[in-house]
Amino acid sequence: MNNTIEKIKDHRSIRQYLDKDVPDELIDEIIKSAQAMPNSINGQQTSVIVVRDKAKREKLAELVGNQPYVAKAPVFLVFVMDFYRTYLAGEKTGFNQVIHEDIEGILAGATDVGIALGASVIAAESLGLGIVPIGGIRQNPEEVIELLGLPEYTFPMVGLVVGYPADESHKKPRVPFESFKHNESYDKKAVEDSIDVYDEKMSKYLKEIGREEQEVNWSVFTSRIYQSVYYPKVKAATIKQGLKTK
Amino acid sequence: MNNTIEKIKDHRSIRQYLDKDVPDELIDEIIKSAQAMPNSINGQQTSVIVVRDKAKREKLAELVGNQPYVAKAPVFLVFVMDFYRTYLAGEKTGFNQVIHEDIEGILAGATDVGIALGASVIAAESLGLGIVPIGGIRQNPEEVIELLGLPEYTFPMVGLVVGYPADESHKKPRVPFESFKHNESYDKKAVEDSIDVYDEKMSKYLKEIGREEQEVNWSVFTSRIYQSVYYPKVKAATIKQGLKTK
Repeated sequence: MNNTIEKIKDHRSIRQYLDKDVPDELIDEIIKSAQAMPNSINGQQTSVIVVRDKAKREKLAELVGNQPYVAKAPVFLVFVMDFYRTYLAGEKTGFNQVIHEDIEGILAGATDVGIALGASVIAAESLGLGIVPIGGIRQNPEEVIELLGLPEYTFPMVGLVVGYPADESHKKPRVPFESFKHNESYDKKAVEDSIDVYDEKMSKYLKEIGREEQEVNWSVFTSRIYQSVYYPKVKAATIKQGLKTK
Repeated sequence: MNNTIEKIKDHRSIRQYLDKDVPDELIDEIIKSAQAMPNSINGQQTSVIVVRDKAKREKLAELVGNQPYVAKAPVFLVFVMDFYRTYLAGEKTGFNQVIHEDIEGILAGATDVGIALGASVIAAESLGLGIVPIGGIRQNPEEVIELLGLPEYTFPMVGLVVGYPADESHKKPRVPFESFKHNESYDKKAVEDSIDVYDEKMSKYLKEIGREEQEVNWSVFTSRIYQSVYYPKVKAATIKQGLKTK
């Protein structure tokens, strides 16, 4: 198709990194890519924290649930939902901000963080860098908020490890395309039919990479996680940051 | 830097489209790009609905708050947060899904939709297509849910207009880079200092494109919107879909 799309479709998450620094100019390009993306009402409700400090990365590696690559790779980016900036705009104009107290604002903010993160992933991979997004940044949000000095109306949404890949890694299969892309309306049957097909595909893949014992297949792996709240401290931490979902 | 990054940094939203179809093969590449992106725990909690039907696009153009380009451009994609798929996985395995009843699940789902959307934006623009994301899909969510036949535990998050651009459009300035990228911890002062600087920059830009009367500057424009809940029907619609933010 074209090089950009070929690279996107070849995405894989990297968890082994070389002990090699990533220059600031590359990190800036990755973050400028994030900033250039469209966002809701031009509120620009995203900020990115660049963590290079070794001790801080070690602390974060722990806080996200002991993921050693967060300390190993030279750069860790934290993508923050940021309604502090627009709150300041309201302070200036006298229009009192309420959007951060409703689920609509929170959904728009989270989506915007994702859009920005998506661009950073693609930019980094286009530069030959490896990445892995870290949802575990929400495992101990209050400690992360303190460590990064995040003000009210902001929240750490996802981390992104950036470094030079030390291995080839695997490309994980996805659910059948026809159950992801729907024509004109949602195709319940395609989604229902996809479960067994994908479980089989994932079982085969997991066997290939030697992880079939822990994960079994997709249904077992995901539904075991989703039978409880993955990161249960998020609710209290959002409220402490002044964010609500009325 | 490289072509991928140059294109990302040159993003602009397109609201004027040629009366020219976009072939299915290109749409598939755009959606495959979305599907290839990383996502939380491989739950793949995103679906994309492709709307080509003219009458449906006209109805949607209305529902999103009378945005005529939704009907004018040949393709409208709706990005859906989708916990129905993992719910089915739980039905199969006997692990009862609860993640869609907590803010943690909703945040992860919304972020994943954003990541997928980001890839689609970049893929489309790499093909010379124009796009504009439509948050207005949340203006009348219950009607959209019905029109697209969205099942329980799903929610329409953002639309994406795709077509061939009929004009060059403008590249909107962003907040100062040093208030978006933070080193080691959140730089409150940089954000506070950015407001006046950016307001001045946006005033100048708005004057250039002839919109300074309606928007004045960034602070006035955003805080006027954020003094109330932009799309107030979201909360009730999420509950109706079985989604909660406990």
